[in-house]
Amino acid sequence: MDRRLLRGARSRRAVTRRAVDIASVDGLDGLSFGRLAQDLGLSKAGIQTLFRTKEDLQLATVETARQVFIDAVVRPELHAPEGAARVRALIERWIDYAAGPLFPGGCFWGATLPEFDSRPGPVRDALRRQQAAWMETLATEFQRAVDAGDIAAADPEFAAFQMSAVLTAANVALRLGDERGVAMARRVMEDLLAPS
Amino acid sequence: MDRRLLRGARSRRAVTRRAVDIASVDGLDGLSFGRLAQDLGLSKAGIQTLFRTKEDLQLATVETARQVFIDAVVRPELHAPEGAARVRALIERWIDYAAGPLFPGGCFWGATLPEFDSRPGPVRDALRRQQAAWMETLATEFQRAVDAGDIAAADPEFAAFQMSAVLTAANVALRLGDERGVAMARRVMEDLLAPS
Repeated sequence: MDRRLLRGARSRRAVTRRAVDIASVDGLDGLSFGRLAQDLGLSKAGIQTLFRTKEDLQLATVETARQVFIDAVVRPELHAPEGAARVRALIERWIDYAAGPLFPGGCFWGATLPEFDSRPGPVRDALRRQQAAWMETLATEFQRAVDAGDIAAADPEFAAFQMSAVLTAANVALRLGDERGVAMARRVMEDLLAPS
Repeated sequence: MDRRLLRGARSRRAVTRRAVDIASVDGLDGLSFGRLAQDLGLSKAGIQTLFRTKEDLQLATVETARQVFIDAVVRPELHAPEGAARVRALIERWIDYAAGPLFPGGCFWGATLPEFDSRPGPVRDALRRQQAAWMETLATEFQRAVDAGDIAAADPEFAAFQMSAVLTAANVALRLGDERGVAMARRVMEDLLAPS
């Protein structure tokens, strides 16, 4: 890899990692070349060279959030045995990600999907793809728990929809200083994972 | 009431009603005096006189959204008989409100609470009060359905949390062009309203 290109890729990653933190609080509309330059001690012109437009910056930020999210929440469970224990571990990692919080504004998707869900374009498309991938991960792991005989047969898409909805609600409650949402999300998880 | 004051109140209402529509799509950060002036054919200075600061405008917009929401979703059910039928009617009105949609970006609260949930201040406080009032309405009606003997005894706050979470998720799904979220929210409602 050309050395300049590598430096460019590293710089892009440093900028977008900071952009993920900002967007978790202020949304993807809260991003600007000037603010990022100031935060990171870089020149605004340098950042503009890395990302030509605000939309390019937003798309690169979504991609970095996706990678960080997968590393923090999804990937650690991939080698755990399939079944109810893996679903539980996946959801507990999600709760850690939101409650930690990994990003200062909590769940990145909870902050940005409602921001863009009514605004057709590439940013909404990227957020929708990530939402679909997360639902697919949840549904797949629920189905594997059914197949393993750990839990009663159920519609995995319905279970994933409910679980994703209550986790998103728990994230908002956490942002408002209310811990009860997490406890209620766990109750929903235990109901969904009731033994067969 | 002083005639000038009345005109002022009417103008404020006309401006904030338009602001609710804008915020449902672009968030409360998407509001500006200039944009509202252009949309409504008013002078920017005139709107700035009605709302001194952007935060005042945001707070007045939240208050108008609250009134329109209550008129559309909550008030029509207040005279219906208490019990499971009233819970069902309340939730169907909420679905109409989001699916209609009453506001071009769908649920106003789904667009603005995630925008402000990590940003302490009067706007977050106002959104939190409205969220708490909606949860309280749902919990009260679930408890009345239990008291009426229509449904099995259950924790009304847990039922309200689940119902609110899946409605919010159904609203996001609608924005993304996916009707299945509404069907799944209805399944959750029917599970919660299972007869005693």
